[in-house]
Amino acid sequence: MIQSSKDIDVAVFGATGYSGFELVKLLLNHPRVRLGHATSGSNPDANLNQLHPTTLDLPLCSPQSVPLNEIDLAFLCLPHGAGPGRGQEEAARLARAGVRVIDLGGDYRLREIDHYRRWYQTEHAHADLLGSFVYGLSEFHRTRIADATRVANPGCYPTCTALALYPLAEAGWLTEGSIVINAVSGLSGAGRGLKIPSLFVEANENVTPYHPGQVHRHVPEIMQTLRDMSGAEIPSVVFVPHLAPVNRGILATIHVPLSQGPSMSEIREHYAARYEKEPFVHLLAEGATASLKHTCGTNHTAISLHPCEGGLVVVASIDNLLKGAAGQAVQNMNLMFGLPETEGLPC
Amino acid sequence: MIQSSKDIDVAVFGATGYSGFELVKLLLNHPRVRLGHATSGSNPDANLNQLHPTTLDLPLCSPQSVPLNEIDLAFLCLPHGAGPGRGQEEAARLARAGVRVIDLGGDYRLREIDHYRRWYQTEHAHADLLGSFVYGLSEFHRTRIADATRVANPGCYPTCTALALYPLAEAGWLTEGSIVINAVSGLSGAGRGLKIPSLFVEANENVTPYHPGQVHRHVPEIMQTLRDMSGAEIPSVVFVPHLAPVNRGILATIHVPLSQGPSMSEIREHYAARYEKEPFVHLLAEGATASLKHTCGTNHTAISLHPCEGGLVVVASIDNLLKGAAGQAVQNMNLMFGLPETEGLPC
Amino acid sequence: MIQSSKDIDVAVFGATGYSGFELVKLLLNHPRVRLGHATSGSNPDANLNQLHPTTLDLPLCSPQSVPLNEIDLAFLCLPHGAGPGRGQEEAARLARAGVRVIDLGGDYRLREIDHYRRWYQTEHAHADLLGSFVYGLSEFHRTRIADATRVANPGCYPTCTALALYPLAEAGWLTEGSIVINAVSGLSGAGRGLKIPSLFVEANENVTPYHPGQVHRHVPEIMQTLRDMSGAEIPSVVFVPHLAPVNRGILATIHVPLSQGPSMSEIREHYAARYEKEPFVHLLAEGATASLKHTCGTNHTAISLHPCEGGLVVVASIDNLLKGAAGQAVQNMNLMFGLPETEGLPC
Amino acid sequence: MIQSSKDIDVAVFGATGYSGFELVKLLLNHPRVRLGHATSGSNPDANLNQLHPTTLDLPLCSPQSVPLNEIDLAFLCLPHGAGPGRGQEEAARLARAGVRVIDLGGDYRLREIDHYRRWYQTEHAHADLLGSFVYGLSEFHRTRIADATRVANPGCYPTCTALALYPLAEAGWLTEGSIVINAVSGLSGAGRGLKIPSLFVEANENVTPYHPGQVHRHVPEIMQTLRDMSGAEIPSVVFVPHLAPVNRGILATIHVPLSQGPSMSEIREHYAARYEKEPFVHLLAEGATASLKHTCGTNHTAISLHPCEGGLVVVASIDNLLKGAAGQAVQNMNLMFGLPETEGLPC
Repeated sequence: MIQSSKDIDVAVFGATGYSGFELVKLLLNHPRVRLGHATSGSNPDANLNQLHPTTLDLPLCSPQSVPLNEIDLAFLCLPHGAGPGRGQEEAARLARAGVRVIDLGGDYRLREIDHYRRWYQTEHAHADLLGSFVYGLSEFHRTRIADATRVANPGCYPTCTALALYPLAEAGWLTEGSIVINAVSGLSGAGRGLKIPSLFVEANENVTPYHPGQVHRHVPEIMQTLRDMSGAEIPSVVFVPHLAPVNRGILATIHVPLSQGPSMSEIREHYAARYEKEPFVHLLAEGATASLKHTCGTNHTAISLHPCEGGLVVVASIDNLLKGAAGQAVQNMNLMFGLPETEGLPC
Repeated sequence: MIQSSKDIDVAVFGATGYSGFELVKLLLNHPRVRLGHATSGSNPDANLNQLHPTTLDLPLCSPQSVPLNEIDLAFLCLPHGAGPGRGQEEAARLARAGVRVIDLGGDYRLREIDHYRRWYQTEHAHADLLGSFVYGLSEFHRTRIADATRVANPGCYPTCTALALYPLAEAGWLTEGSIVINAVSGLSGAGRGLKIPSLFVEANENVTPYHPGQVHRHVPEIMQTLRDMSGAEIPSVVFVPHLAPVNRGILATIHVPLSQGPSMSEIREHYAARYEKEPFVHLLAEGATASLKHTCGTNHTAISLHPCEGGLVVVASIDNLLKGAAGQAVQNMNLMFGLPETEGLPC
Repeated sequence: MIQSSKDIDVAVFGATGYSGFELVKLLLNHPRVRLGHATSGSNPDANLNQLHPTTLDLPLCSPQSVPLNEIDLAFLCLPHGAGPGRGQEEAARLARAGVRVIDLGGDYRLREIDHYRRWYQTEHAHADLLGSFVYGLSEFHRTRIADATRVANPGCYPTCTALALYPLAEAGWLTEGSIVINAVSGLSGAGRGLKIPSLFVEANENVTPYHPGQVHRHVPEIMQTLRDMSGAEIPSVVFVPHLAPVNRGILATIHVPLSQGPSMSEIREHYAARYEKEPFVHLLAEGATASLKHTCGTNHTAISLHPCEGGLVVVASIDNLLKGAAGQAVQNMNLMFGLPETEGLPC
Repeated sequence: MIQSSKDIDVAVFGATGYSGFELVKLLLNHPRVRLGHATSGSNPDANLNQLHPTTLDLPLCSPQSVPLNEIDLAFLCLPHGAGPGRGQEEAARLARAGVRVIDLGGDYRLREIDHYRRWYQTEHAHADLLGSFVYGLSEFHRTRIADATRVANPGCYPTCTALALYPLAEAGWLTEGSIVINAVSGLSGAGRGLKIPSLFVEANENVTPYHPGQVHRHVPEIMQTLRDMSGAEIPSVVFVPHLAPVNRGILATIHVPLSQGPSMSEIREHYAARYEKEPFVHLLAEGATASLKHTCGTNHTAISLHPCEGGLVVVASIDNLLKGAAGQAVQNMNLMFGLPETEGLPC
């Protein structure tokens, strides 16, 4: 056996949040990657094992101390928004310095500047760069990602929802009435910030919807992607996210009205054909139902289809920290560097 | 202070399942009730503390050894269906013997015999008794329950859903399109039977829909109640129950299409008026969202209302073992015996 | 039935932490108590239902606005230590004003001022009051509590441990080698303060010892009580507390070396005799093992005894928020006001 | 890059329990292994994805259908004991057929036949083979494992405990009084069998000791290993295992009396030296405490040392399914086939 050479030099900006830490672990195990720098804005002199209960002995550094000319790719796992050390600024700084960037934050996902303003409720200091980022939903933009130098990694809810509905959107079957998306996320989706609802005692033995009825910032991202997939306007989407007492995972249960149109078996065949060759998207057998456990700890997406009166229920699950963040980021890196798409992503 | 006299003699048939055990605890703390007999079909000679981790020293007995002439009321917490020791038979035996009955099982909830046959997939050996049971949704049938000798205690999902939609049904506002109900239940809702999906390792760190799209046996019960409430046919209901890793509680997130009709403030006022005097139903303030924790460990129902494009999202929660089973049974007993409705039910 | 008159006026100082909220719920259900005032130092104008997910509509007030002459008893659920609004000051202010006090905090539990200084690492501004508080372990100081106007409610770990070892201490059987106490607490024991280890994602799927080997502030309290019980010095105690991913409960697993001395059946008989008439302490049958579930949601203590080579393993559990805090406080109030000891404490 | 060739053909006997399933996932990701056969005694015609919620499409087969001459190594994840399809028989059948075997069950761990009889409470039909198995604690028997054809993979509790105490045993510092081991295991340690205490509702929000004081079958295994490590008799061990509501992980909190002897810094230095070069054993920095999270999802062991009055508290954690079962089995396979010890085991 010849040991693979570790020849891609990467840095992780923001290695101490849940997504950043997950990404670090993937990269350390990736046969082709050398993780030379992992930054922390607030604890640049610490070791990762002082901030997380881990046996990994990984020294952190400040974002400013990363020698940009020595890295082939920068991953950004930073809070979104304007200001020093946040995603908007850092992604712009790196991109303008000619560094390849995969941004796991939300600052460069929406193409329309006023959508950004409205949903993120802040100005965008680098609106001119918005168009230069490819939306990194690997299965949808595979070839564009392979050629990209800047990738906006999708949000966790949008990844799960868009993959659940992609075959319907593409076939032009998302045209009737309201699409009702009820989704459940684990607590890592709420981040590592200190707030009462994230305390164990509050979240445990509880399930709680948040922002029901209101428009969550993931909705314009979902709408933008579904429009791109279908090449047409999408009827209204009702999205109700919930927190459930699990560490990780997203499950979306989606009701799609389909009073006319394709039969259930046509739909199933269309999904099967669409995802037949995808290494990370799985249509479950008839009778099976997707659950968090199907994908927890993996980069996979599980989808199940269920007929109902007047339509269809689609259930999909991903691991929010993997396919919904760090895993898809590695998948996109693999595409950008011409590696096998599954490299370094355990099955 | 004069100690309340314990003057109502009751028996619990089936005291060792989750609902039965919860009921036993409520009854032992009830100031007016003497719990003389608690039965177990499979362990009639055991003590409750040998079957559950509890400090309660409560001897069990066989169903046959309960002296029917000495009890004022029998609670039944038995598996539904035909055959000895099951709800259908035992409720009939007791009812025909002239004993007052509150049946927490599903055998006497549906008025239409063919609905029963279809959803419970078994024959009903005592179909002649179906009409003699009052459906025990306390807030809806309060006066009929007060006069009843036989009460069919509602299911947990139907209780939560019907109270969530009662004001809309009553006002005639449930007339458009599909009502999409996504509900989450704790594992105690799956009972104490031994099956793989109920194991800790399987259910923990998981959320799983069950029977999506298919019609669950709670759907005809929900439909029957909403029809009774509205006096009209109800458009289609899509119901997707999920298991979440909590011990107890039900949360229903319901999308109601309402493109024409009342304004949000009219709806809110109508709910407020409807439930103003109810001790166990609470409309949360604008901006708050109902969660499992609002009602866990209580007999309460929490409801929150949220406008959305083209309609309304109603969120409601109950404790499945209390308002969804044992608590509502005690509430109904209080009604039947002319006690304050909240007696023995902690706030 | 004659409705019990609610004739004891109480106030809760610090109603928004986990112990305070638990106490509020007990008091609202207590047949003899009128809870007229519940304070919050930081949110005096809020309603409890704005700070906790609850259907309880309970207005809060500032500590200063409680009319001390109108209350019969004040419960204090405040952070320990010196300074305005903390237990040391508030308890002193109320006590000096002649108000009966039950302090659920730690400021008045240790009789020796230098023990306080050492373990709480702060000065005590009201050391002169230390001797005037009765240590409120109900089962040990029942008659003194009945006559007391000031009670220092025990800590959760000391309550569980002291009741587990009381019969051994009393019999003079705690004389050999090190007593090794491994204890597990639910997260509510860590309070509602915002800190990384209390976040759901950190505590869930984790068990973590804290301060192993070091002396936790509960150790001098345990030692003081065991000395009082035995009338003699106690050999060394090794105490290792752990956090486990449950909301509530304390389980202590205690190894007691007993190479000489009583037989297992003598020990068992002694425990049985000691606790025979206690309403809230239960010696489990031989072969059974105490677990959190035995006491969760109740004011009870469950104890099981297990022989081992060279000694004895004692396992005990309580609910940290009930017998370990609010429940024992109500039990002590019942003693102080001549009520049945179990009044308002569900079995 | 040259793709590593997959040149080691393995089979997993018993692929559907928790350890077996974990092992399957490791082997599928191992760069040198081809997993040709995965058996199920009870569901030989099923696919793994019909028995577990997974996207893995892995057909199962019967144990009899595995062509023994085509495999280089057989892993056994079977229930222990005598009789067809159990570990005793299958390991003997494969070993006698000349197949290399790593047995994850307990049948070949104890060298003394009467120890086996006593603790496993059954006869051993192949006692003549006992001496031919190397005890597979990788860090202790590395060179013997490299030469072995038959390996008895250690139990989860013994692995955690033995690695926690190895430096003390080796140095001759385990000579005083009782070693008190309190250990906590996640529910996967109880297996996938159907029993009431393994139900979610029973285990959740609970912590429960099992067999306190009694001798668990892991005790003779721990004693045998500590004796081998120290070359001397070991004083008595008190072992109390507990179940905690987590899916995976073992934490051992061990009190070692050490009134005379080495200083804390000597002990720390000795641990540091012992484990300096071990890829999977980590001595945490002074002040840090080992927790489940340190090792969950990895093959690592985390150890922390804490002085206490009259001795030492050692805390150690492993993932019971990885270092405590499947991970250590792969580590042993790597040793047997001359691969880098960490191959296929994510950091």
